[in-house]
Amino acid sequence: MPTLVLLRHGQSAWNLENRFTGWWDVNLTDQGVAEAIAAGRALQAAGIAVDEAFASVQTRAIRTLNLTLEAMGRLWVPVTKDWHLNERHYGGLTGLNKAETEQKHGADQVKIWRRSFDVPPPPMEKGSEYDLSGDPRYAGIDVPLAESLKDTIARVLPYYEAAIEPRLAAGKTVIIAAHGNSLRALVKHLSGLSDAEIVSEEIPTGKPMVYQLSGTLSVQSRAYLS
Amino acid sequence: MPTLVLLRHGQSAWNLENRFTGWWDVNLTDQGVAEAIAAGRALQAAGIAVDEAFASVQTRAIRTLNLTLEAMGRLWVPVTKDWHLNERHYGGLTGLNKAETEQKHGADQVKIWRRSFDVPPPPMEKGSEYDLSGDPRYAGIDVPLAESLKDTIARVLPYYEAAIEPRLAAGKTVIIAAHGNSLRALVKHLSGLSDAEIVSEEIPTGKPMVYQLSGTLSVQSRAYLS
Repeated sequence: MPTLVLLRHGQSAWNLENRFTGWWDVNLTDQGVAEAIAAGRALQAAGIAVDEAFASVQTRAIRTLNLTLEAMGRLWVPVTKDWHLNERHYGGLTGLNKAETEQKHGADQVKIWRRSFDVPPPPMEKGSEYDLSGDPRYAGIDVPLAESLKDTIARVLPYYEAAIEPRLAAGKTVIIAAHGNSLRALVKHLSGLSDAEIVSEEIPTGKPMVYQLSGTLSVQSRAYLS
Repeated sequence: MPTLVLLRHGQSAWNLENRFTGWWDVNLTDQGVAEAIAAGRALQAAGIAVDEAFASVQTRAIRTLNLTLEAMGRLWVPVTKDWHLNERHYGGLTGLNKAETEQKHGADQVKIWRRSFDVPPPPMEKGSEYDLSGDPRYAGIDVPLAESLKDTIARVLPYYEAAIEPRLAAGKTVIIAAHGNSLRALVKHLSGLSDAEIVSEEIPTGKPMVYQLSGTLSVQSRAYLS
């Protein structure tokens, strides 16, 4: 039966510094590397033989995936990287420390930006050092100025349905290495969570979440590998 | 103009132990890892911005590619892995130390197996610990029992022409991370070397060989990045 593994990237440098990251391309910490390797070993120990893999185009997700696949002895599986699986774009908050942002804008405002379903953060300013519109990996793509969780879901879900569901329908075991909010989009869809429920769903770094699916892709079970 | 980078994997554990490797899946040594990272830095310093990447399905080539791309800040480029880019299959010699094999079969015989154009080594025996016919990465593929360099070229070249040349013809900069003999196939084709010339062409590990091509894919220059 089809199996879908959702894997949030291991700890990144900005997870550690508590900064808003979004599309900014931050690498893993040593702990993040260790988490990714442990994820691969846990999947192998559980007998979950990944056939195909998907990742965002962000280094922390791709490296997590590569380390996980290597630890499973399955670096050879096909990997597709696509920006639709990127993290939510944090707009003008990108690069800011969360505590400093609370001091400046107030904890209530920051909570709205972080945990509302459909309120985007302030837009990325043109010419910001974090403006990625000229990055070659986004050539031909309208890089958003900011995204709410709702905006993120609106680009993750059609991609999942077009590119990933057909592989699951073919009975494959698929892993998706991505980000807190792009994975929330999938968990909301698969587990049928409400808008209010999904904003408080915390997905830990480097811990594989395994969905067992039926032949028609209805969810049979959902569990973290410990 | 199109650019093609050929990169032999960094030093592997069996390069170091001087054992025939072929399709057996041996990982990089620490030196091999360092070579791969240095290759990425050299490519970046030379301003060679890779658009697309290809590798065999063998860990040492894929890891080399991943480390090289990461060192260039380009882990996000599309990567295609295909068994047609695998190393020459060393048949019954797989796993044997080269010096021991010379003692057993004579230096002249071993030189024929290693350096003739069209003499395959003895075939892999069924049930050998190095038999990969049951490996899931080769499901649906007739794993060869042994290959000469000529046999290797006969599978590498059609793949190159079908999958990689069109990307070069589109003006892309492409990197291929592969193996001593699968890369010999490409060097023979691109540089027009004779059967006698190609068997003595030594391709060092972890050192990018850069072909500059014309719009019609004729070779303008060939050089190693130092």
